[in-house]
Amino acid sequence: MIIVMQKNASTEQVNQVGEKLQEKGFKVHVSEGVERTIIGAIGNRTQAIMEFIEMLAGVEKAVPVLQPFKLASKEFKSEPTLVKVKDTVIGGEQFQFIAGPCAVESREKYLEIAQLVKELGATMLRGGAFKPRTSPYSFQGLEKEGLEILAEAREITGLPVITEIMDPRMIELVADYADVLQVGARNMQNFFLLKELGKVDKPILLKRGPSATIEEWIMAAEYIISSGNDQVVMCERGIRTFETYTRNTLDLSAVPLIKQLTHLPIIVDPSHGTGKWRLVEPMALAAVGAGCDGLMIEVHQRPGEALSDGPQSLTPQHFGALVRKVKGIITSFTECK
Amino acid sequence: MIIVMQKNASTEQVNQVGEKLQEKGFKVHVSEGVERTIIGAIGNRTQAIMEFIEMLAGVEKAVPVLQPFKLASKEFKSEPTLVKVKDTVIGGEQFQFIAGPCAVESREKYLEIAQLVKELGATMLRGGAFKPRTSPYSFQGLEKEGLEILAEAREITGLPVITEIMDPRMIELVADYADVLQVGARNMQNFFLLKELGKVDKPILLKRGPSATIEEWIMAAEYIISSGNDQVVMCERGIRTFETYTRNTLDLSAVPLIKQLTHLPIIVDPSHGTGKWRLVEPMALAAVGAGCDGLMIEVHQRPGEALSDGPQSLTPQHFGALVRKVKGIITSFTECK
Amino acid sequence: MIIVMQKNASTEQVNQVGEKLQEKGFKVHVSEGVERTIIGAIGNRTQAIMEFIEMLAGVEKAVPVLQPFKLASKEFKSEPTLVKVKDTVIGGEQFQFIAGPCAVESREKYLEIAQLVKELGATMLRGGAFKPRTSPYSFQGLEKEGLEILAEAREITGLPVITEIMDPRMIELVADYADVLQVGARNMQNFFLLKELGKVDKPILLKRGPSATIEEWIMAAEYIISSGNDQVVMCERGIRTFETYTRNTLDLSAVPLIKQLTHLPIIVDPSHGTGKWRLVEPMALAAVGAGCDGLMIEVHQRPGEALSDGPQSLTPQHFGALVRKVKGIITSFTECK
Amino acid sequence: MIIVMQKNASTEQVNQVGEKLQEKGFKVHVSEGVERTIIGAIGNRTQAIMEFIEMLAGVEKAVPVLQPFKLASKEFKSEPTLVKVKDTVIGGEQFQFIAGPCAVESREKYLEIAQLVKELGATMLRGGAFKPRTSPYSFQGLEKEGLEILAEAREITGLPVITEIMDPRMIELVADYADVLQVGARNMQNFFLLKELGKVDKPILLKRGPSATIEEWIMAAEYIISSGNDQVVMCERGIRTFETYTRNTLDLSAVPLIKQLTHLPIIVDPSHGTGKWRLVEPMALAAVGAGCDGLMIEVHQRPGEALSDGPQSLTPQHFGALVRKVKGIITSFTECK
Repeated sequence: MIIVMQKNASTEQVNQVGEKLQEKGFKVHVSEGVERTIIGAIGNRTQAIMEFIEMLAGVEKAVPVLQPFKLASKEFKSEPTLVKVKDTVIGGEQFQFIAGPCAVESREKYLEIAQLVKELGATMLRGGAFKPRTSPYSFQGLEKEGLEILAEAREITGLPVITEIMDPRMIELVADYADVLQVGARNMQNFFLLKELGKVDKPILLKRGPSATIEEWIMAAEYIISSGNDQVVMCERGIRTFETYTRNTLDLSAVPLIKQLTHLPIIVDPSHGTGKWRLVEPMALAAVGAGCDGLMIEVHQRPGEALSDGPQSLTPQHFGALVRKVKGIITSFTECK
Repeated sequence: MIIVMQKNASTEQVNQVGEKLQEKGFKVHVSEGVERTIIGAIGNRTQAIMEFIEMLAGVEKAVPVLQPFKLASKEFKSEPTLVKVKDTVIGGEQFQFIAGPCAVESREKYLEIAQLVKELGATMLRGGAFKPRTSPYSFQGLEKEGLEILAEAREITGLPVITEIMDPRMIELVADYADVLQVGARNMQNFFLLKELGKVDKPILLKRGPSATIEEWIMAAEYIISSGNDQVVMCERGIRTFETYTRNTLDLSAVPLIKQLTHLPIIVDPSHGTGKWRLVEPMALAAVGAGCDGLMIEVHQRPGEALSDGPQSLTPQHFGALVRKVKGIITSFTECK
Repeated sequence: MIIVMQKNASTEQVNQVGEKLQEKGFKVHVSEGVERTIIGAIGNRTQAIMEFIEMLAGVEKAVPVLQPFKLASKEFKSEPTLVKVKDTVIGGEQFQFIAGPCAVESREKYLEIAQLVKELGATMLRGGAFKPRTSPYSFQGLEKEGLEILAEAREITGLPVITEIMDPRMIELVADYADVLQVGARNMQNFFLLKELGKVDKPILLKRGPSATIEEWIMAAEYIISSGNDQVVMCERGIRTFETYTRNTLDLSAVPLIKQLTHLPIIVDPSHGTGKWRLVEPMALAAVGAGCDGLMIEVHQRPGEALSDGPQSLTPQHFGALVRKVKGIITSFTECK
Repeated sequence: MIIVMQKNASTEQVNQVGEKLQEKGFKVHVSEGVERTIIGAIGNRTQAIMEFIEMLAGVEKAVPVLQPFKLASKEFKSEPTLVKVKDTVIGGEQFQFIAGPCAVESREKYLEIAQLVKELGATMLRGGAFKPRTSPYSFQGLEKEGLEILAEAREITGLPVITEIMDPRMIELVADYADVLQVGARNMQNFFLLKELGKVDKPILLKRGPSATIEEWIMAAEYIISSGNDQVVMCERGIRTFETYTRNTLDLSAVPLIKQLTHLPIIVDPSHGTGKWRLVEPMALAAVGAGCDGLMIEVHQRPGEALSDGPQSLTPQHFGALVRKVKGIITSFTECK
């Protein structure tokens, strides 16, 4: 870290900072300039130490020079992490199409859509049994019954299932049924939940919080990995901005950034990321262009009757067309190599 | 709600929308314009119904006309809610000064600062036993030991204590020690936690999420109230914007808005809301000008040695000066009446 | 527009609103509900009338139901606008590669890079002669000399040139040299400039302001079109968000939205939209996936020596590789049709 | 500035960076750490040099350590700048109440409101003759006629007048009539306009752009000052965020920050900063608490009939009450000293 001293900092103040840093195990280099003195401190920085230093007399600011994440970083591990889900892998050669309705609404409807999306190219199934809803008066999910339906759909289709976990008390229950546990955007910094998921023997799909910086998002992954589970898949689903035509602003630059900063795979959810079904296909194709490892798409037989997130769901027919276009782009990439 | 039909919507489509609305119990009024037909639908709107309608053929959009919150609204209850905390009240005549360090760091230090801030005018104590931290490598709080220290400080000072609850599994534990349970900004939409807090017989201090709209924040209060607990205090603590000189942008317009839209009291946390101790006093005075019911201020004996959030903590001396200035403004308000 | 009356609005207040609306030429429909009365008003809404109505006694709010733009809208003109630039067209079959350095730095360097990018697939040239810079101490452009160099590059390559216009006083000068006049992001709401550009017989490339909603951006296009010039090309170049790893957040959902809401072509600038050359290629490919009509890419012989925006410039070699990949995606789209 | 080398940077790369920096006149200090080498470079940094360095082989990033503004900074000039406006001063002892309608709508109405606000405590008059409007179809101002009315109002009331300048071509005209020239939020980075205003012998009121960081805003002031005019008043008027209940989010932390970073006075505009008259009084009082030098308030005889920004205008009666409350707070501050 770099410590910038105030313009009028005294020699005593500079010395004091140097001593405190050495006490804490840093190697210190002082550079005296015409206007300022700058101190380079090399060692094991933490947020707490930076804040401590910033409070010392004569200090203007402490500037971090290294990223705060370690285990998730590309520097720690340069080969991409392959996340194994039953017989397939997220982050490898195969592009993943994770499809299904926002919420599991009934056994009959779910089993129907599960088989439909499989025929159209889906490689995994999604469906919420516990639903985080802004309003306490909205449909909150079928809970345990929903999990049982998901398990039955897996049985029938052979596809792995992904579902959201919202509360540490339900991890055991959900892990009994699901192949991948999803942390929703609103829980990205539910640190107790993250730590518990670090102890689970299932892959975790970690959605980006709507106001999370990419660094905070990677730090959330770091919570899971440092607690013992390195099978983490990142999922970009849009951030909150001032724009009102879309529900969220899908930040596709997250795709190459996650690839450059970490070794984790990343998939994109253009359904939540836009909130409008008319935008799902173009933004899904854009995500493929950006280099993601898979897509998570809401598909519903009759979107107009969905109990949640109807307006952002594709019909099965649209989903099938999308799969074909995605495969076209991926083929063109392979040919370009 | 208002349904705006597409420019070229057919009479059949208009009729279909009208019928569907009536099926769901709405009273329907159709207005045919030169360019568009507009349908007014009066009844018990939910998000699900709006989304359902938006998917029907010929519909351009459904526009809500009423606020989605009920129990928290001023229309539901026009007198201000008085939140009782031991012998005092938040939201009444008395202005509340909630003070203390970000985290409880040790018994000795906490008891010292608790007595100091009491002498300087604090009316309640704050202090974190469980700390949500962006990094898994930062200090996470003293946990149960921290709660015991808080209880001892209450014993000695006679002031009520407020502390954060992060996980539904710890509600019983925390409620055993604290007088007010705080929901942190990152947990504002932890809906399972909110529902559980609705069943607790203690007041809840609900911090605004860094990217929560005021409407979403009130909806989070609605979760708690509709689960059975109407003793909710709102706490503005800054929102996330593009500005980088401050840690958050303290949105003081939330103060009059909460007063105009709801019957709940609101306090302001200028310490987290700015992240810089040099901004705490001016923003605290600004919050008082905006009409808040109290302030939550981080105070630390030696901010430079704090284990978390040192740079935003005031010294006891600064805190004392702030209390005097706040009281001056409040007196000037009383004299203006 | 829809007028929502307050809960306790009197019949007189409802009648007054109705009369005022009729005076202003609106057709009025009143819907009395259990909780509220709602008034539908059909006619020629303006912002001023909405604001006037919102001030009347008993009115809670006025909700617009139609978009405020007219001439730019898809409803006004359903076929896409083809913007003619010398022998080529933006918005038609041909995908446009607009390339060149951020600023024209010297005659020799510009002519070299112009020929290089042409050989690699560029269809138009870019280069700033007047540069808007955050700091008054940064390089501000070669001004008239820069325009002469651009004209010479066009002569040599046969490619049209695009350059930025920052001040109404310079329109004549810039229009003498350039084939397309670019309105930079910071001038998107420089309304005097927009009106003057409506009188110019050259196409206008209108960059989105960093904090402009899509609606405001289309309204800026409406200024140009309503002043007489319908040859407008939209250019997405990133919006300002809280994220700090990127210079801006490239909002690719703007691409399908502009296509769905207007008849104007849209190109994407991933260089400014990310600020990092390592993100330019993936985001350019993403933009193609989203369906844009062209790309605007900064290319510099030696990005490390560029006088402005070096870090976001590609080398010619990278640009050539990008062109090949873009063409691959476009071919895959054609085959999918 | 600090240069952070990549983890695997070679000694040759470190040396090359050092040489390049020395060529450009920097004093260089190299700190070799276990993981990284860090180079401190002390000298006259510009954005261009930083970008140049960031492109060199082996460089991870260049981190600025000093603020980019000079003439506007507190370090350059520690005493507050007093901006003289006719017989009064902005930034001194006297608190300024700048009041009037958003736009000058007619001679009769403007002269009436001007006298009304003077009697109620206004110390300066505001009123737009040229109005920047999002829509080309909205009222654009009375232009020259509006300026003449402003001049007449000054004659009658003796109060100085402030009005907006939108185009460099009109500076002479507007400066003939107005006492203070206002740069609107949308023109904050209209650099040609700023440079021209640096040559004018009138004070400039510089509104913050809706998406401008505080640093960019100060850099805009730097443009004016470095062009020759140091009579600059900053005006906070709200930034763009995701919140929709308010038109903008009034960022009052800008008040103490401008005071701490610069020597310039700052006033606050709670009318544009909130967009709702019900929020104007509480936010005006908040701004006073934050320490501003004055308020700019929209006042209209009949807000419901205003041609622009009616919903955010106070009635004269409200304005009078506000003045009394502000004076109460200011008195309480004086007594606290």
